[in-house]
Amino acid sequence: MASDSGQDGLTRRELLRRVGLMAGGSVMYQAMNSLALAAESPWKGPTELKGAPPGASVLILGAGMAGMTAAYELRNAGYKVQVLEFNNRAGGRNWTLHGGDRYTELGGETQHCEFDPGLYINPGPWRIPYHHHGILSYCKRLGVALEPFVQVNYNALLHGSKAFGGKPQRFREIKADYQGQVAELLAKATHQHALDSLVTREDQERLLESLRGWGALDSDFRYVAGDVSGERRGYLKPPGGGLTARPESGTPIQLDDILQSGLWRGVSSGDHYDMQTALFQPVGGMGRIGEAFGRELAGLIRYQAKVTSIQQDAAGVTVHYDDASKPGVSQTARADWCLCTIPLPILAEIPMNVGEQLGAAIGAVPYASSVKVGLQFKRRFWEEDDHIFGGISYTDLPITNIGYPSTGFHANGKGVLLGAYIWGLNAMEFTSMTPGERVQKAVEYGSQIHPQYKTEFDNGVAVAWHRVPFTQGCYGMWTTEARARHYDDLCAIDGRIALAGEHASFIGGWQEGAVTSALDAVGRLHQRAVAQGASA
Amino acid sequence: MASDSGQDGLTRRELLRRVGLMAGGSVMYQAMNSLALAAESPWKGPTELKGAPPGASVLILGAGMAGMTAAYELRNAGYKVQVLEFNNRAGGRNWTLHGGDRYTELGGETQHCEFDPGLYINPGPWRIPYHHHGILSYCKRLGVALEPFVQVNYNALLHGSKAFGGKPQRFREIKADYQGQVAELLAKATHQHALDSLVTREDQERLLESLRGWGALDSDFRYVAGDVSGERRGYLKPPGGGLTARPESGTPIQLDDILQSGLWRGVSSGDHYDMQTALFQPVGGMGRIGEAFGRELAGLIRYQAKVTSIQQDAAGVTVHYDDASKPGVSQTARADWCLCTIPLPILAEIPMNVGEQLGAAIGAVPYASSVKVGLQFKRRFWEEDDHIFGGISYTDLPITNIGYPSTGFHANGKGVLLGAYIWGLNAMEFTSMTPGERVQKAVEYGSQIHPQYKTEFDNGVAVAWHRVPFTQGCYGMWTTEARARHYDDLCAIDGRIALAGEHASFIGGWQEGAVTSALDAVGRLHQRAVAQGASA
Repeated sequence: MASDSGQDGLTRRELLRRVGLMAGGSVMYQAMNSLALAAESPWKGPTELKGAPPGASVLILGAGMAGMTAAYELRNAGYKVQVLEFNNRAGGRNWTLHGGDRYTELGGETQHCEFDPGLYINPGPWRIPYHHHGILSYCKRLGVALEPFVQVNYNALLHGSKAFGGKPQRFREIKADYQGQVAELLAKATHQHALDSLVTREDQERLLESLRGWGALDSDFRYVAGDVSGERRGYLKPPGGGLTARPESGTPIQLDDILQSGLWRGVSSGDHYDMQTALFQPVGGMGRIGEAFGRELAGLIRYQAKVTSIQQDAAGVTVHYDDASKPGVSQTARADWCLCTIPLPILAEIPMNVGEQLGAAIGAVPYASSVKVGLQFKRRFWEEDDHIFGGISYTDLPITNIGYPSTGFHANGKGVLLGAYIWGLNAMEFTSMTPGERVQKAVEYGSQIHPQYKTEFDNGVAVAWHRVPFTQGCYGMWTTEARARHYDDLCAIDGRIALAGEHASFIGGWQEGAVTSALDAVGRLHQRAVAQGASA
Repeated sequence: MASDSGQDGLTRRELLRRVGLMAGGSVMYQAMNSLALAAESPWKGPTELKGAPPGASVLILGAGMAGMTAAYELRNAGYKVQVLEFNNRAGGRNWTLHGGDRYTELGGETQHCEFDPGLYINPGPWRIPYHHHGILSYCKRLGVALEPFVQVNYNALLHGSKAFGGKPQRFREIKADYQGQVAELLAKATHQHALDSLVTREDQERLLESLRGWGALDSDFRYVAGDVSGERRGYLKPPGGGLTARPESGTPIQLDDILQSGLWRGVSSGDHYDMQTALFQPVGGMGRIGEAFGRELAGLIRYQAKVTSIQQDAAGVTVHYDDASKPGVSQTARADWCLCTIPLPILAEIPMNVGEQLGAAIGAVPYASSVKVGLQFKRRFWEEDDHIFGGISYTDLPITNIGYPSTGFHANGKGVLLGAYIWGLNAMEFTSMTPGERVQKAVEYGSQIHPQYKTEFDNGVAVAWHRVPFTQGCYGMWTTEARARHYDDLCAIDGRIALAGEHASFIGGWQEGAVTSALDAVGRLHQRAVAQGASA
């Protein structure tokens, strides 16, 4: 069967030409292109490494997303795999705190999470975008159930402590009123011929029509109180039923107030590529992925193993580690190759014989400061009183975010909010506090947005990433300069050692960075291992 | 305790004044307003009717959302309640078709739904917005579990059969490129002083800053290919990990192409008040609400009861009906009051002694034509190949929508799409077809958007609302003129009969219209019953 011939001997080109003659050009174009959609994503499907050299072994340092991705693929390819993990659980930053969990941070403070059964907080990642094909494919293969993560909630709040007298505004009103008045201004500019040199007369008509629909303008291209804007911004009294049904419109917020408040900054929060729908969360918490990976790799992972040195020679790599269950006795592991996913602040302190370039790269990436606070309340007042179901409120207070749970809607009993998600200088300040003080501060700030905090607060936990013993920071912060100078060195295989993790990716701070980095690294490690043959 | 005095005898006003003197005006404003948020919604919480006159009875016609809302509240208030329902199930248009279900439409065609276990289609309503407090409150009280309904999916498709050669475009690209170029045009107009008479110089600076952030413009206020626009529209090759990590940007679609294509119409689909997040669906299908209501009201509802006449007198209302299980024998029910939720096209054919005004109102509201088609496929190719998880693709083909399931992500086995959701003339055309032809047409049209249809299609069902025996139409379409003339007459109590349903609301076609209409009607009926005392 010739691949470019039809059944009756027509070439594909000729067939398309005839289709075109019969049905007009657009059908032909469609016939040529209609199959192209599925190929648009560069994601090629799961990696399937095969054919490890007989007896070849890989030692993997770290059972986070990168380490376990590598272990999964290398094991499947036939390598002897061993994973050393500092914690007594799999997942690393993929981590969920439930009631009953204990966590001790650097400095020795131990927190006992007292959330009710089923309630949790993800101290690390909490959402997965639809285009993070790597992590999603492992969720599928490991049977981790996913549910939608609500990022944008039009009824959530935008809050500026100096804007609107400190009163939070509804996202839907700021968004509709900003968009409507932007559309109105551009319609006016169009009518005043300001666009005549930029847009053809015909397209100006189309532009005006689009601005009216998109901006919710009236027939005179004005954004004003009434049903048209109400169908975007909501109502003072929404439409209902029976004789009490007639809606009442509220008054749009003036553009100058929106501009001066800075609240416009929150409007595009759901437009960012990483925050666009569809977004997911594993049912039961992000940590379900790490747990599933850990079960899949049971027997390959050695927990509570603190690496103390990494030494390579011509034939392999030797790693010394302390076993927390046998204090004082140094243990040894050895393999032909080593994939190291230890976060850079910790790796930088571990003796390791690698080249100058990799050594310099390891020291070139500072880690971001971030703090997350989980707060349990006696009831889900954000749903019951404020009609906010999932999503995020934004504030210029140090707590930055209040995240509402995307699951368990309408549940009676207690509920847990993400009470703070802090970056930068504010995160450093929160890191310097005790966990109890962080929780207290989050409650104080949050009560400016939800006064119910004062009476409904129950308990909380606070994770400051610079005090997390297994990372000492949240994620690697690459500057453009550091990336130009050191990134390729960080990723290049140094003798028998390769690095992987979100720090070795262009998607810093996301699990997808860890996964794609590991897939890239094991692919190259495999190539090299195959080229060199099996170990002696 | 005086309500306007503090503990030390200060009046509230004086206290606020002192707070203002100490801490500056904005704190005072905040103190005055910070508790106002929870009161913003006019929703006052569940209705709690109490104190039915002893022995008072109400006959309710129809066990849809309006009828069961009324039955629930009136029963709780102490009325003797009986509900007559045409179907052999509760819910009315709240209805889910699962595998194994049978449905016979007007004309006699019977469909046997052959979906796999757990898969379903909602022929009627399929989403509940966060501000539909009435229906949501019944979900909560009846224990109906809710999950997010994904309305907007940035990776779903916008398709114009004559646009871009018929090739579907990703929502995220059309949205980002439209928004970016609108922002760029307005920035240019601002720089060219076209806004000088409209916006102060200072606010123009703020506007420009906002347009840059919101529109993803570069430092020169241009919307161009690169990382800034890539972080909205996505990438040709998205950022990854390791040595294959560097992203590659795609080229934005030019504004004139977007305007000429008409695809801008899809951009604001998630901005509409009724389509804004958070949106919900009951776990297992919309019909779970009707089923739960039916269980709650078990014993009060008589199924398969086709009303044939409604006659009121000075003391009560007598309804004749045919019991489908005892053909040929007319049955009678009687009560002090009657709440009638029968859809108007059917009610108009039932003899009923009401006043001229109500009679005219019943005849004044034509019902919308709508068709929904559910299609089962052999696999979830939209997830596996196209990375579309939930949400809706829009097309100018007659099928209008393709809706992807918001649940069961990553499931192996078969999957069900909403393959068509049609209104107006196209719906009438589809209504005139047999169910099998509707399904076939939906597959043909849909394969222009998803070529996988051709090989993956399994089976389908199609509900044309004008052929639905219990409504003969989708919902009441009020014109402004008809509403001005007839709406209050339709809602007013006529003697001992009141009407309720989405047709007696300002939220036509939504379950919330049925619920709020019923709550309004039973409130007035209760008032009148109390005023008149118990029945003789």
